[in-house]
Amino acid sequence: MDIGTVAGLAMAFGLILLGNKLEGGHLNSLIMPTAAMIVIGGTAGAVIVQFPIKRIVGWTKGSVSLLLRKKPNPPLAISQIVDFAKRARREGILALEKEIGSVEDPFFAKSLRMAVDGLEPKTLVETMEVEMETLETEADFNKKIWEAAGGYTPTVGILGAVLGLIHVMSNLDDPSKLGGGIATAFVATIYGVGAANLICLPFSNKIVFNFKEENTLREIELKGVLLIQEGINHSIIEEQLKSYLDAKQRKEYDSKYGSKE
Amino acid sequence: MDIGTVAGLAMAFGLILLGNKLEGGHLNSLIMPTAAMIVIGGTAGAVIVQFPIKRIVGWTKGSVSLLLRKKPNPPLAISQIVDFAKRARREGILALEKEIGSVEDPFFAKSLRMAVDGLEPKTLVETMEVEMETLETEADFNKKIWEAAGGYTPTVGILGAVLGLIHVMSNLDDPSKLGGGIATAFVATIYGVGAANLICLPFSNKIVFNFKEENTLREIELKGVLLIQEGINHSIIEEQLKSYLDAKQRKEYDSKYGSKE
Amino acid sequence: MDIGTVAGLAMAFGLILLGNKLEGGHLNSLIMPTAAMIVIGGTAGAVIVQFPIKRIVGWTKGSVSLLLRKKPNPPLAISQIVDFAKRARREGILALEKEIGSVEDPFFAKSLRMAVDGLEPKTLVETMEVEMETLETEADFNKKIWEAAGGYTPTVGILGAVLGLIHVMSNLDDPSKLGGGIATAFVATIYGVGAANLICLPFSNKIVFNFKEENTLREIELKGVLLIQEGINHSIIEEQLKSYLDAKQRKEYDSKYGSKE
Amino acid sequence: MDIGTVAGLAMAFGLILLGNKLEGGHLNSLIMPTAAMIVIGGTAGAVIVQFPIKRIVGWTKGSVSLLLRKKPNPPLAISQIVDFAKRARREGILALEKEIGSVEDPFFAKSLRMAVDGLEPKTLVETMEVEMETLETEADFNKKIWEAAGGYTPTVGILGAVLGLIHVMSNLDDPSKLGGGIATAFVATIYGVGAANLICLPFSNKIVFNFKEENTLREIELKGVLLIQEGINHSIIEEQLKSYLDAKQRKEYDSKYGSKE
Amino acid sequence: MDIGTVAGLAMAFGLILLGNKLEGGHLNSLIMPTAAMIVIGGTAGAVIVQFPIKRIVGWTKGSVSLLLRKKPNPPLAISQIVDFAKRARREGILALEKEIGSVEDPFFAKSLRMAVDGLEPKTLVETMEVEMETLETEADFNKKIWEAAGGYTPTVGILGAVLGLIHVMSNLDDPSKLGGGIATAFVATIYGVGAANLICLPFSNKIVFNFKEENTLREIELKGVLLIQEGINHSIIEEQLKSYLDAKQRKEYDSKYGSKE
Repeated sequence: MDIGTVAGLAMAFGLILLGNKLEGGHLNSLIMPTAAMIVIGGTAGAVIVQFPIKRIVGWTKGSVSLLLRKKPNPPLAISQIVDFAKRARREGILALEKEIGSVEDPFFAKSLRMAVDGLEPKTLVETMEVEMETLETEADFNKKIWEAAGGYTPTVGILGAVLGLIHVMSNLDDPSKLGGGIATAFVATIYGVGAANLICLPFSNKIVFNFKEENTLREIELKGVLLIQEGINHSIIEEQLKSYLDAKQRKEYDSKYGSKE
Repeated sequence: MDIGTVAGLAMAFGLILLGNKLEGGHLNSLIMPTAAMIVIGGTAGAVIVQFPIKRIVGWTKGSVSLLLRKKPNPPLAISQIVDFAKRARREGILALEKEIGSVEDPFFAKSLRMAVDGLEPKTLVETMEVEMETLETEADFNKKIWEAAGGYTPTVGILGAVLGLIHVMSNLDDPSKLGGGIATAFVATIYGVGAANLICLPFSNKIVFNFKEENTLREIELKGVLLIQEGINHSIIEEQLKSYLDAKQRKEYDSKYGSKE
Repeated sequence: MDIGTVAGLAMAFGLILLGNKLEGGHLNSLIMPTAAMIVIGGTAGAVIVQFPIKRIVGWTKGSVSLLLRKKPNPPLAISQIVDFAKRARREGILALEKEIGSVEDPFFAKSLRMAVDGLEPKTLVETMEVEMETLETEADFNKKIWEAAGGYTPTVGILGAVLGLIHVMSNLDDPSKLGGGIATAFVATIYGVGAANLICLPFSNKIVFNFKEENTLREIELKGVLLIQEGINHSIIEEQLKSYLDAKQRKEYDSKYGSKE
Repeated sequence: MDIGTVAGLAMAFGLILLGNKLEGGHLNSLIMPTAAMIVIGGTAGAVIVQFPIKRIVGWTKGSVSLLLRKKPNPPLAISQIVDFAKRARREGILALEKEIGSVEDPFFAKSLRMAVDGLEPKTLVETMEVEMETLETEADFNKKIWEAAGGYTPTVGILGAVLGLIHVMSNLDDPSKLGGGIATAFVATIYGVGAANLICLPFSNKIVFNFKEENTLREIELKGVLLIQEGINHSIIEEQLKSYLDAKQRKEYDSKYGSKE
Repeated sequence: MDIGTVAGLAMAFGLILLGNKLEGGHLNSLIMPTAAMIVIGGTAGAVIVQFPIKRIVGWTKGSVSLLLRKKPNPPLAISQIVDFAKRARREGILALEKEIGSVEDPFFAKSLRMAVDGLEPKTLVETMEVEMETLETEADFNKKIWEAAGGYTPTVGILGAVLGLIHVMSNLDDPSKLGGGIATAFVATIYGVGAANLICLPFSNKIVFNFKEENTLREIELKGVLLIQEGINHSIIEEQLKSYLDAKQRKEYDSKYGSKE
């Protein structure tokens, strides 16, 4: 679970609803499936028209990982690579075959599999760089789809509100229902503005930061596999990979895994 | 029919109108030819002032193809090129003359005709590249015209609403008609905001993605015709053209047409 | 008269006013000299503060030509150049002196005059290129002034509306006049939003397309005069100048003037 | 006095207020020191937070000169430089010492002083170019501060309006005061929108055009002083400096000062 | 304390509240913890979703320093460096060890410590440049976080207002409470618009100016330490470092510390 994302969402929705409750508002009056149908339906339709289906599918998956992803842990990855390097020097690179199953990150597993299978380093790098570019294109599309959605939700929300107001206005005969009708119409605005500002736009930007973190991890993994393949000594590998870490991560690495050497 | 575009439009309009219906709104109260006349007329006028007539005509045609176009099928095109290559090696390039009629894509047909007619490869490439640039300029204009229309519709919609409100306000004598009058005025806003967000802006962006897909197909076709003209062996042609495909398309090609070899 | 511009304006204003009329609105209630005074006065003032006087003067002239300009006719110009070239080869370049009076485009006339007067080609090109740059700067300013005006009119319109509302609100004693007062206030909004979206912004963009068309014509004319001056054969001139035309114009040239050769 | 700026401001404010008066509005109802306090105070505060104090001070001075500046007169400056050049050739450059006092433009005076004092041309150019860069940075900041102010005034105006509306709404007991209260609240909007569109944004753009005019003058003056220092003949200086003038200025120079030679 | 920031904030809030008070508004009616909870909670949540936690923590610290920071004083720093240079030449660079404690700026202290410890100049420069880049990235994030917050507050404010209006509208039974309810709803708008325009956006821009000032100081300090390490004569050091000062700072340096030499 991505603590930052989940905590941010909980904070935004929690405090807004709490503030509303303390002012005397009822949560009930904010729950309106028809308004949600208008805002989500209209936005989803516009997004589906705009982007290729294949990208929409990728975005749906990518968005789940926004909430559930595990934060990349480069120090742990380096420690694992150093372990593998030691073993490969002792027992030969084929000995790593049984380790591949225990590797969680599919990018790392695939690189390792290719090295164990004895592919040329050049082929290995080219294949994995194509993989990295594909992942970058995907992250870029996910960002743009959230951004587009964040542009559509508020206007579709207003569209929903005006639809509601038209309904209210055509039935002015019974003024006692006027207030309730207008209130209902406003809920679509709440949904549209809220979805854009509390979900779509923050997610759109978060994706860029997440991609950078994950890409650094992938660079470490690819570099590490190549060094193992070359049969480089594990302490040189460790030194080289540590240059990818920032000051805080380096300290963490030294305290947790550095004793290894 | 472009499934994505048609499904997206159906979803957006369907769910918004369904949501409105469930809230008790009447579809009737949203049908107003005069509001449509104002929004479409004002927007079309502004677009006609802004762009050269020739581009507006091209855009009208291009917009029909947004809904009706067939998704480019590069694997199928490669398979066809490989067939032609086999035949040309066996019977000579002139044998392809009778095949030209069966080629659907006019770009492919024109390239093939030039090759059969024995034009210099250099002339063939230059002519077809001019054709590709013309198509790119056209796609670019179509994108910009939808974008401009998406900028004008909401403001013209507001203009229509204010016109309606002026009419209502000058006739406050009969308050019982006030609500209905305001409701009518709001319909122009609905039309303007809806047209921009559910049609114009998504179409404007979709055009870019469509153009890229179609352009890749044209690159494959042009490359294929040149290789046939050179008399290259069909299996080398197949290999070269497959490099234009992404992973999924390559798999599709192999399963459907790959047995051919 | 520029058909596209005039037809677009007629369509926009015609359909909006017709739609309003069919809804029961009165054209009378939209005619308010004071609102026009506020919107036009405020916008003009802001534009005059912002731009150098000299550019405002140029823009006023350029804007008249937006409505009245004749569409450039490159095929006709090439045909005329080819005629002049024939004559110059037969009777010497001085024979063109009496033709200068019949040339409509001042840019063409000036280039021709310089060639007849025996100026060095290098001087001729430099002088005319300075002329072309001056015209480009002018077009660029005209575009920017329309754009700036299109940014000011809606806000000045809102300013006019709020001024009207203040007036209405300070006189709530007689509620029967409330509606009419608000209606009047809204007219300034109509003027501001309408001027921006139906006139200023479309004109601003149209200027760029017009400039490009006219600049191509000037390039043809300058090139043509230089080739005449060099004493090149008229059919070579024709061939060279035709490369400036697009497919449709080339066809037009061939059908109308091509027999000449 | 800068005619364009002053006339533009007079036109904008004059016609808007006249239009309002003709509609029956009272100027009195638009004069509200408290609304001015809110709009000016809030905007000034935001600008002071945002920019370094030193830049705010420079901007205050620069803004006075927007209204009071004398239009640069390059032909006059060239004529003066030509006079100085003649004299320097006749009596030596030291003879110009007594002329420095009569030179109005401080940039010109400083350059001349350095030349008379016998500084190396290289040092002179470097010093004056640093001066020109400083003036450019200053103009750039003045532009940005007006721009920022033009962004803050409308929102602070709306803030003032909402403050007023809150006040009105909390006192609905006496409905007879409702209209007047709302009217008062709207005045802050008028101030904010008016200040942004009639003053801040036009001034922000005007500064760029003014800077360019003044910079051309400074280039002429610096070039002129360097040529005088080199002892170049005055008619060559005249020729060289005239290349900085546009067609209209060149004509003006020839008719007013050209006889001199 | 940063005078400009604090004075600007005081001016903005002071004059707006004073203007409101003079109009008859009550400060009490603007104090609403629930509205603050909605605006701050919603904005903070969106910002926490969007940015990595590590950057949010850095931004919180950086924002305190926006109010409390001491203005960088390059002349004072140069004077101190010159003193250190004299001493190092007389007593050797080790003599500076006891001075490090008295150096306030941690960047300066760290550079000096490295020089005293006898590190290679190349290593010293590399280390400190990494430090400068880290500080630049941090400043850049702080700017972007304030900017993002300034984008979210007004929309979350409107969200709060609509929530309030829904509450009011659902309880129209008692019209006497209508006004008060609407007033309360508007307070969230005030908070959102005020926070964006008087705090977030000005702070976002201020950070850039502050960073530039501090970075110049750091460049002086790093250069100074390197020159001391090389054993350069103090008056040459003084001359070189003074080239980083602008005219006013140079005058200040000469009058306050220049006698030293």
